[in-house]
Amino acid sequence: MKIIVINGPNLNLLGQRETSIYGTLTYSLLCDKIIEESKNLNLSTEIFQYNSEGDIVSKIHDCIGNFDFIIGNFGAYTHTSIAIRDAILAVNIPFIEVHISNIFKREDFRHNSFFSDIAVGCISGFGVNSYLLALRAAREYFK
Amino acid sequence: MKIIVINGPNLNLLGQRETSIYGTLTYSLLCDKIIEESKNLNLSTEIFQYNSEGDIVSKIHDCIGNFDFIIGNFGAYTHTSIAIRDAILAVNIPFIEVHISNIFKREDFRHNSFFSDIAVGCISGFGVNSYLLALRAAREYFK
Amino acid sequence: MKIIVINGPNLNLLGQRETSIYGTLTYSLLCDKIIEESKNLNLSTEIFQYNSEGDIVSKIHDCIGNFDFIIGNFGAYTHTSIAIRDAILAVNIPFIEVHISNIFKREDFRHNSFFSDIAVGCISGFGVNSYLLALRAAREYFK
Amino acid sequence: MKIIVINGPNLNLLGQRETSIYGTLTYSLLCDKIIEESKNLNLSTEIFQYNSEGDIVSKIHDCIGNFDFIIGNFGAYTHTSIAIRDAILAVNIPFIEVHISNIFKREDFRHNSFFSDIAVGCISGFGVNSYLLALRAAREYFK
Amino acid sequence: MKIIVINGPNLNLLGQRETSIYGTLTYSLLCDKIIEESKNLNLSTEIFQYNSEGDIVSKIHDCIGNFDFIIGNFGAYTHTSIAIRDAILAVNIPFIEVHISNIFKREDFRHNSFFSDIAVGCISGFGVNSYLLALRAAREYFK
Amino acid sequence: MKIIVINGPNLNLLGQRETSIYGTLTYSLLCDKIIEESKNLNLSTEIFQYNSEGDIVSKIHDCIGNFDFIIGNFGAYTHTSIAIRDAILAVNIPFIEVHISNIFKREDFRHNSFFSDIAVGCISGFGVNSYLLALRAAREYFK
Amino acid sequence: MKIIVINGPNLNLLGQRETSIYGTLTYSLLCDKIIEESKNLNLSTEIFQYNSEGDIVSKIHDCIGNFDFIIGNFGAYTHTSIAIRDAILAVNIPFIEVHISNIFKREDFRHNSFFSDIAVGCISGFGVNSYLLALRAAREYFK
Amino acid sequence: MKIIVINGPNLNLLGQRETSIYGTLTYSLLCDKIIEESKNLNLSTEIFQYNSEGDIVSKIHDCIGNFDFIIGNFGAYTHTSIAIRDAILAVNIPFIEVHISNIFKREDFRHNSFFSDIAVGCISGFGVNSYLLALRAAREYFK
Amino acid sequence: MKIIVINGPNLNLLGQRETSIYGTLTYSLLCDKIIEESKNLNLSTEIFQYNSEGDIVSKIHDCIGNFDFIIGNFGAYTHTSIAIRDAILAVNIPFIEVHISNIFKREDFRHNSFFSDIAVGCISGFGVNSYLLALRAAREYFK
Amino acid sequence: MKIIVINGPNLNLLGQRETSIYGTLTYSLLCDKIIEESKNLNLSTEIFQYNSEGDIVSKIHDCIGNFDFIIGNFGAYTHTSIAIRDAILAVNIPFIEVHISNIFKREDFRHNSFFSDIAVGCISGFGVNSYLLALRAAREYFK
Amino acid sequence: MKIIVINGPNLNLLGQRETSIYGTLTYSLLCDKIIEESKNLNLSTEIFQYNSEGDIVSKIHDCIGNFDFIIGNFGAYTHTSIAIRDAILAVNIPFIEVHISNIFKREDFRHNSFFSDIAVGCISGFGVNSYLLALRAAREYFK
Amino acid sequence: MKIIVINGPNLNLLGQRETSIYGTLTYSLLCDKIIEESKNLNLSTEIFQYNSEGDIVSKIHDCIGNFDFIIGNFGAYTHTSIAIRDAILAVNIPFIEVHISNIFKREDFRHNSFFSDIAVGCISGFGVNSYLLALRAAREYFK
Repeated sequence: MKIIVINGPNLNLLGQRETSIYGTLTYSLLCDKIIEESKNLNLSTEIFQYNSEGDIVSKIHDCIGNFDFIIGNFGAYTHTSIAIRDAILAVNIPFIEVHISNIFKREDFRHNSFFSDIAVGCISGFGVNSYLLALRAAREYFK
Repeated sequence: MKIIVINGPNLNLLGQRETSIYGTLTYSLLCDKIIEESKNLNLSTEIFQYNSEGDIVSKIHDCIGNFDFIIGNFGAYTHTSIAIRDAILAVNIPFIEVHISNIFKREDFRHNSFFSDIAVGCISGFGVNSYLLALRAAREYFK
Repeated sequence: MKIIVINGPNLNLLGQRETSIYGTLTYSLLCDKIIEESKNLNLSTEIFQYNSEGDIVSKIHDCIGNFDFIIGNFGAYTHTSIAIRDAILAVNIPFIEVHISNIFKREDFRHNSFFSDIAVGCISGFGVNSYLLALRAAREYFK
Repeated sequence: MKIIVINGPNLNLLGQRETSIYGTLTYSLLCDKIIEESKNLNLSTEIFQYNSEGDIVSKIHDCIGNFDFIIGNFGAYTHTSIAIRDAILAVNIPFIEVHISNIFKREDFRHNSFFSDIAVGCISGFGVNSYLLALRAAREYFK
Repeated sequence: MKIIVINGPNLNLLGQRETSIYGTLTYSLLCDKIIEESKNLNLSTEIFQYNSEGDIVSKIHDCIGNFDFIIGNFGAYTHTSIAIRDAILAVNIPFIEVHISNIFKREDFRHNSFFSDIAVGCISGFGVNSYLLALRAAREYFK
Repeated sequence: MKIIVINGPNLNLLGQRETSIYGTLTYSLLCDKIIEESKNLNLSTEIFQYNSEGDIVSKIHDCIGNFDFIIGNFGAYTHTSIAIRDAILAVNIPFIEVHISNIFKREDFRHNSFFSDIAVGCISGFGVNSYLLALRAAREYFK
Repeated sequence: MKIIVINGPNLNLLGQRETSIYGTLTYSLLCDKIIEESKNLNLSTEIFQYNSEGDIVSKIHDCIGNFDFIIGNFGAYTHTSIAIRDAILAVNIPFIEVHISNIFKREDFRHNSFFSDIAVGCISGFGVNSYLLALRAAREYFK
Repeated sequence: MKIIVINGPNLNLLGQRETSIYGTLTYSLLCDKIIEESKNLNLSTEIFQYNSEGDIVSKIHDCIGNFDFIIGNFGAYTHTSIAIRDAILAVNIPFIEVHISNIFKREDFRHNSFFSDIAVGCISGFGVNSYLLALRAAREYFK
Repeated sequence: MKIIVINGPNLNLLGQRETSIYGTLTYSLLCDKIIEESKNLNLSTEIFQYNSEGDIVSKIHDCIGNFDFIIGNFGAYTHTSIAIRDAILAVNIPFIEVHISNIFKREDFRHNSFFSDIAVGCISGFGVNSYLLALRAAREYFK
Repeated sequence: MKIIVINGPNLNLLGQRETSIYGTLTYSLLCDKIIEESKNLNLSTEIFQYNSEGDIVSKIHDCIGNFDFIIGNFGAYTHTSIAIRDAILAVNIPFIEVHISNIFKREDFRHNSFFSDIAVGCISGFGVNSYLLALRAAREYFK
Repeated sequence: MKIIVINGPNLNLLGQRETSIYGTLTYSLLCDKIIEESKNLNLSTEIFQYNSEGDIVSKIHDCIGNFDFIIGNFGAYTHTSIAIRDAILAVNIPFIEVHISNIFKREDFRHNSFFSDIAVGCISGFGVNSYLLALRAAREYFK
Repeated sequence: MKIIVINGPNLNLLGQRETSIYGTLTYSLLCDKIIEESKNLNLSTEIFQYNSEGDIVSKIHDCIGNFDFIIGNFGAYTHTSIAIRDAILAVNIPFIEVHISNIFKREDFRHNSFFSDIAVGCISGFGVNSYLLALRAAREYFK
């Protein structure tokens, strides 16, 4: 079972950026943890990060035939991108929405998501663990 | 580490009720699974279910000194109960919000929660696994 | 065919309470009239009244296997209780919403109902006759 | 006691139109049932149907001195016609609002009525029985 | 002149709960102060606290013939309970709304009250003194 | 200078209808007064009344080449008819909006007009004098 | 019969200010016309203009016992001043709202008035004639 | 294949009315062009225009068995008529919505249509060509 | 301890103005009662009333160094004046908001206050007693 | 006359993506049909597709001097991109908005377009024919 | 070139008031800096401050013939005063809106300005420099 | 001190695009003016322009360690891009928002900015001078 993790804009700055919200773990350590947990769970996982909405759309298109599950944290695009939503719908691959921070504790414009209603489920607020729980949920999904 | 799971109104009918949304697993089997996973994770977990808002408020009060973590699925009260919200705030015990179904796929009045902004994090849409992932997240929270 | 009539908060004060809106008929006379009309229509009817939202939820659960039809006047909970709505959906028993007064003549917050869209039909504004017409409608429903 | 039933636009197509919503009973059979029940209840009832808002306004004017009670199903004009509302207010004849379908199960723009707050009461969702119950309610009204 | 003070959900935790908002005075000391001031003012006062909406409704019903004035702090139910509002209207006993904290300094959902427009008057923000001023206002009301 | 006065639905019932709002002057006396004042002001005035929106649209079309000024009281259509608005715009004849009652003292849905922004001016609340003042304003308009 | 005309802020600049909206007639000529028409109608009229909201409130207080009718064009305060509204209500003198321009053709924030619902009637859009028609309407009001 | 073109209120004034918006082509020339293009496309087309909402409803009813496709430009009723919407739904004949002008360039109240969501498709802004393109689209629809 | 009471527009008319809402006590008697109660409570109190928003702003500025507590009833400016709000914030003197009538029983535009969230507390609906209770609350505040 | 067709995100997946909405015609066949119809109509047409908003903006800039007409289906960017709107306005080339599906039958957030009010006209709901009709409309535009 | 700087309510307290928002520079030092920079830029500048809306309106009227440019910081009136807006429009003198603090970082009711859309431009958030930059912008405006 | 100026989509067309709004100065001349003024102010400034949101996000990331201040005119992305907002927050470099035109004179959807509340300050409406004033404000910021 092959899983893709797609991270959206500004996540590359993790650990440097607004650490009171996002924590001090760096992006590369986040990736290491995801890969490590994937091995524990016998999942084959690849991770990508893009700042551009169009790049995310195109990457999702490329998932057809290559991945069985999408774990997505689209960052700011969560609240604005119908194009990425349409891409998820178009490729018809099961999808979990994750967030590092609890988006409901933040500005009003972060309370709305274009992805929650098309996701299998949502996990937010657990820092890096949001991803690790999502991996586990993905594995269960296929049982 | 002692964990309480509090379930809100109508969850006792699980498995009999709107099975296209909530699945066919009965409430007692749900409880069994939660207890079993708790043992795997070395957690001591108790589970309660109430149909009355006031009973949930009172039970949360009783958690002071008795439990270290609350996992709550307040069902319909998620969208209407400021009293339960206040109880959570009053006892000041860390809390995870879980939902069996993906509430964002459902009626508009289920999209708003009085709990998301005061929870450590939220997990929804994974059926019984929502609880199991929450147990794991709770355990990580204390590390 | 067995019918349950469930009345919500404050209906026990009927005849004493805001008589310009609700009329002077007392609650016990209301019950008598409902029972009498039930007999005329060859229906077996029981009547309950609760002030607590949770008690109404639990009573609705108890209807499974015991009643064929629910006639509900949930009073103030009409406008606030998703929990009772969920209970009605959960037990999957046909349901008619009744009101003694015409709720559309009153405060704005009484114009919205969480029950109208899941009821077979709605009858409001006819005083005690709202119940009697509902009994008749219930009988027709089964033909 | 003389009763007028006024039906609004498109009701003439009953039985041919969107039968999943309105049922298969034709308009002329609906009229027969209303007349039959009126006789049972010792009421003298006449039935009219118009597609034009202005015709309904004029017919309501003509009720002065000719009818004691109006049962109205103004169809789509329920949600848009202040002119018909004004006519009802102007003639000052008691009025019941009926609907064949449960309008609260349908599009949002059908949830608002310009008539509910000026009606004696409202009955909706019982198919042809909505009219028959209204006849009975009208008879009770005069007692 | 007999006065009842009815406190809503979570007020029993006073002094333990969110002390930056509600202060450190415990609930039992609050009760002592109210009783003491009542004696000073020659009022006979009893105090009750409930977490359940239905219990508050029922207690208000019991006031008929037993109390001359209601001082109510319905806590979170202030913002959600039409049932308690209806109970107040039903028993037709004069009523003052009090709050310990200034609800207008807090979350938006606490700015709306279902009681302000049916109260004689409102007093909020003065801690325990909100109750003591209300006792005085009640005494003046009868002069 | 030729003036047309167009009255909308229900105005024919003037004097019989809701006399606390519209007064006791009958429609035919209203017409007499308008004609009399027109003579005083050396204006040639004709008056029409329709219950149907379409008839008003058509009559406005007929004004081209026949009338120099329109005084309109479109009654309930004031708040709903874009079709009549379009007719006024189409014939490009100066227009005054009049109302017998002060529409701002009434229901919210009467506060909005589809005509105010395309009228030369508006006169409301003066009973029959609203028309007489409009005649005078029309005469001044041409000077 | 004594009439006061109260003009609000910026009306003193009439004839110099935004002449495409307000016309080229100067404020002093406006006053002359009002006085002249008052004589024609056997009315005793005085005119005042203030830029300050508080001055208008105080002047309205002074009307008690000195004037029988208020004609007010409160300019920008039409849309913002509850204080002037309260003054009008407090002195309980009949009042007509006038506007030189048609406020409904202008910015959205000019469409709402705090005075329309407490006025005898409203006249807007006729330039200086708005005042002259109001004088006539005031005279009729007392007949 | 038989097509009906139904035009709503004020379209009869085409060429005389607001020519900066609707162009100078007269209504009769519009009809000629539609008939000519229908012949080119081997379609049998009839054209009707009504100012009354009720007449349009009735004409749509008459289409049953007589026409295979409706091309409708309901003018102002586009934005207000649920009755015409219901008629289209009732007769269940495929339908294209056309507009001469681009309604999205105009007043806000013209941006909403009661027909767009029940049409096969929409064509607006191309003047008379909107109709000619609709004829072509209708022909393709049946292939 | 020195206290200033600042009254806003129209309060000078107390006792003459809308007595069904504000009661028949005159403004000068109101002042007498406030001074008398101040003496009872060993407070030094001065009272001012202004119709102009700017005058209130300036008076609040003058409080610096002269008064320890502000009791304000800003009348209509309660709902519109950010300038007075800013003055209160600027001088940083504790402040209680009082109202004679219960503003929540009145028009919608009186339900919002620019002062409630910056006040120590609010007292409304008790007539002259609102001020007397505020004096007592102010005295307690300093203990 | 040179025409550019610009397609937005996810249109490259046509025929694979949500075929119940978009049909089974593949993107390359869509392009073939557009080119073929262009030849029939003596138009020189080029087609581009981009997933990135920025690429569409840049391509529109490149149209200056190279194309006479833009036919745009900006997919999800229709509802979110002010940047593309600005590009269209900046290059000042006539533009038609097309959609394959009828966007008004879909989610609420697809009902708003940032392009409709700056387009010559809009064509939606006819599948591939939307483009073919647009080519024809473009050709007519230049006559 | 003569410039007037008009400051609104509470600005006289600068340096004493909410210094975390407005800084510690006193109002008289602010004035000194403005005059000094004016000299550097060869501008003749006068500065005024008023707490009363009406005084600002009158001062703006006085600018006619006396000043070539208005720099305005209307403080709280920015968000509430249509009267000052009208005065600016009436005198037709170019105008820059300045703010010491960044109003978009503050309460919601400070985000709306009645002046931004009629200003040449807006400068906010730079403390005293907001004024100095405005002087420079004014000088450029006349080149 | 090193400053970066980042311009958003369509600004490259300056001087060619909607010149009534943006003026006739070309983009390269704008850049020359910014560089020239930077030299006058002893600032080291670099200028970039991107049409893609993702490119702007990435460029802002690159500012870490390379620039001390960001002057941003994000064009259309001002109103839609949370991703760029997050990038500004992430790099934690002081930032000024500039606009060539006065965005408050334009369409409603341009009145909202995702940047104003996180900027040091905002300057809009002064054409190229908006940038030059921002340079000066940036220099002052560091003093």
